[in-house]
Amino acid sequence: MSAAPDEVEQPDPKGRVSATDRMTAFSDGVFAIVITLLVIELRVPEYHEGELLTGLLGEGASYLAFVVSFVYIGVLWLNHHALLRLIRGTTLTLSWINLGVLFGAVIIPFPTAVLASAFTHGDTDDQRAAVALYALAAALMSAPWLVFFGYLHRHPALLERRVSPEYVRTQRLRPVTGLILYGLSGLLGWFVSPLLGLIGVIVMITYHAVTSEGLPRWLTRR
Amino acid sequence: MSAAPDEVEQPDPKGRVSATDRMTAFSDGVFAIVITLLVIELRVPEYHEGELLTGLLGEGASYLAFVVSFVYIGVLWLNHHALLRLIRGTTLTLSWINLGVLFGAVIIPFPTAVLASAFTHGDTDDQRAAVALYALAAALMSAPWLVFFGYLHRHPALLERRVSPEYVRTQRLRPVTGLILYGLSGLLGWFVSPLLGLIGVIVMITYHAVTSEGLPRWLTRR
Amino acid sequence: MSAAPDEVEQPDPKGRVSATDRMTAFSDGVFAIVITLLVIELRVPEYHEGELLTGLLGEGASYLAFVVSFVYIGVLWLNHHALLRLIRGTTLTLSWINLGVLFGAVIIPFPTAVLASAFTHGDTDDQRAAVALYALAAALMSAPWLVFFGYLHRHPALLERRVSPEYVRTQRLRPVTGLILYGLSGLLGWFVSPLLGLIGVIVMITYHAVTSEGLPRWLTRR
Amino acid sequence: MSAAPDEVEQPDPKGRVSATDRMTAFSDGVFAIVITLLVIELRVPEYHEGELLTGLLGEGASYLAFVVSFVYIGVLWLNHHALLRLIRGTTLTLSWINLGVLFGAVIIPFPTAVLASAFTHGDTDDQRAAVALYALAAALMSAPWLVFFGYLHRHPALLERRVSPEYVRTQRLRPVTGLILYGLSGLLGWFVSPLLGLIGVIVMITYHAVTSEGLPRWLTRR
Repeated sequence: MSAAPDEVEQPDPKGRVSATDRMTAFSDGVFAIVITLLVIELRVPEYHEGELLTGLLGEGASYLAFVVSFVYIGVLWLNHHALLRLIRGTTLTLSWINLGVLFGAVIIPFPTAVLASAFTHGDTDDQRAAVALYALAAALMSAPWLVFFGYLHRHPALLERRVSPEYVRTQRLRPVTGLILYGLSGLLGWFVSPLLGLIGVIVMITYHAVTSEGLPRWLTRR
Repeated sequence: MSAAPDEVEQPDPKGRVSATDRMTAFSDGVFAIVITLLVIELRVPEYHEGELLTGLLGEGASYLAFVVSFVYIGVLWLNHHALLRLIRGTTLTLSWINLGVLFGAVIIPFPTAVLASAFTHGDTDDQRAAVALYALAAALMSAPWLVFFGYLHRHPALLERRVSPEYVRTQRLRPVTGLILYGLSGLLGWFVSPLLGLIGVIVMITYHAVTSEGLPRWLTRR
Repeated sequence: MSAAPDEVEQPDPKGRVSATDRMTAFSDGVFAIVITLLVIELRVPEYHEGELLTGLLGEGASYLAFVVSFVYIGVLWLNHHALLRLIRGTTLTLSWINLGVLFGAVIIPFPTAVLASAFTHGDTDDQRAAVALYALAAALMSAPWLVFFGYLHRHPALLERRVSPEYVRTQRLRPVTGLILYGLSGLLGWFVSPLLGLIGVIVMITYHAVTSEGLPRWLTRR
Repeated sequence: MSAAPDEVEQPDPKGRVSATDRMTAFSDGVFAIVITLLVIELRVPEYHEGELLTGLLGEGASYLAFVVSFVYIGVLWLNHHALLRLIRGTTLTLSWINLGVLFGAVIIPFPTAVLASAFTHGDTDDQRAAVALYALAAALMSAPWLVFFGYLHRHPALLERRVSPEYVRTQRLRPVTGLILYGLSGLLGWFVSPLLGLIGVIVMITYHAVTSEGLPRWLTRR
């Protein structure tokens, strides 16, 4: 088939490199699903007749957690978009590292639900645990990104021609920053105040959203 | 890779513009998931032996809410389809605006479930709250579309060659209309009668379905 | 963009016809999601310590319902695959008819869950209602297919060149058969015996699976 | 349409073979959804105020089951990726066999949830049943792969030109091994010790992950 998704039959001078098309499609699917699944955690509150509005207003924490996680997955998707544009092929190892990256995104609905529950039904101890869990998940999520960049740095043959290994090396700073700052937010939430920790997480996500390694910066480089 | 989804390597005279392929695939995924997730809210009613049929018949409001929201998401998808056909590329800002558009679609199952619950188990106050919430969500959902058209109007370089900025400007009327009329339906539902508000919402969705900026009108313009 | 998903810019002598690519992608997404969502209805049974196995064995009806519906959606997907291969473009009306076809697929998890519940926890009356509901859903699901073929028959310009309008007309027999035979199975289940009705439904799905308007027959026609 | 997903109109000397594009897209969708749906089984534990952390720590078995199944579906996806690269077309029969392969992946969340439940709330008998169920599912899942390779071996015309029927024959060993070793793990879990059986399953998945018929080995063969 001339346009098979894997392009195996295409004349390709650097034939050892396998196509990223299906990895891209799979990743896009996972991000699209996880960003949509978040809504499942928004449940109709239990209510007595005539008290639905009160019930809905009492779920403010769920809505906030939903919005924060929606933006977070949006950030991850945009960054992942930029990440896959760096490479012109994949290997089995890189595919597994990418599955690690997706793992980090896929679990988000769980700490989101824990967060929403703790700020709706829990006390300060519960909120402490929930914020620490969310920040821990966010911090650990940075690890496979670090591994991804490290692998690319050691395998420059996988890079698109216009991407310098130097550039990849500097990119490693981003997940390192995430690992440290999300980690600090978690410690802040656990030892000082859950609310402060939560604010730390939200500031981090906002920062990533605004500076995200999205399309335009990338394009101006070309 | 010659057919990489982002076309970065393709000769492209207006190279600063980034491909919309992955944004399209991601958006399609989100719409496909959210239109399918609606069914999760259709639950087998609790029933005593021999009373399943009675239970099912008592869930009429859920079925109506399901159908309305299915049509609504269908409308949104067709409009989004037409929207992305206006542009030949995206930027980081536009990608975020698009995530805002998707946000509006992703939340629909929640007000749908609230609506179904209020008309099955609630009293007039609950129905009032549920209709107002649904209409509010529908009205607010128009905002990112407005921002999308406004951004395109200010960045005509992103438009397909055959699309005039003038056309984009007139398109801004559509979300403005949605914002106002869904808002009015909500007020109607809240202050006058939930049923009237609900009818207002259904009329609006039907109107959008029939006049939706779908394919054919668009095609005859070419 | 040279490979934009809508191909709008592609030189196309019969330019008034719009691409089906995004409709195909959206439909595939919906089928993939709904066939996967079925598993959500398989729940771990409530059990006392040491009685998990007994609980699992008591859920036999759920497993059967899951398998039947999985095969059913598989049949629908293969038929839809063949359906979209008949056409070389779509219109707004046809897109809405296609949404009707997808509607029929999307609801399947609900009658499936009702069926599983009735045969696990219900009595004969409940099973009667559940089988009738499933058969009714299957029968009604045939309607948009009928409309689809009818529309194609009246708009032969949308057909692929190698497809004769005559062929489309004969294809209308398939949904008519489905409508009648699923309807009869429902009546059988309601008035005679739920088990007989269920067998009728399963026979119909199996028949469709074996004779499905899949790829090969189609290909040999070329 | 020049780039229609099915490529039917493409000049293709071996025209009887139908495209695998839509089968690939559908399969990718199913794998992406099922790997993401796993997270739905991670639920916020029931807890009294102040005991959320204790509750979360008590769910260790759920997290382990989640990770194991995530890796498992990752393995299946990579193998499926390699599988579809062997072929240059499909038939109705092969599409049904592929649906069988997908069936095996789609059910995974169910034995995963049973496993998590048994190791959190059950006694040894429950764990025995859960491990045996998981291993049984994994063993049976190998069957359609075996059928897939057998069918390819009998229909070499479907193979990509560079793939020898001999290679396909040797590949049949992989699902046979899976069938036997997962089966043995199940027997081990049932008759000897649930923990030993579980370890057997995890070892098998790890082994498959490390040796998975992924991209690179495949590429070096070219």
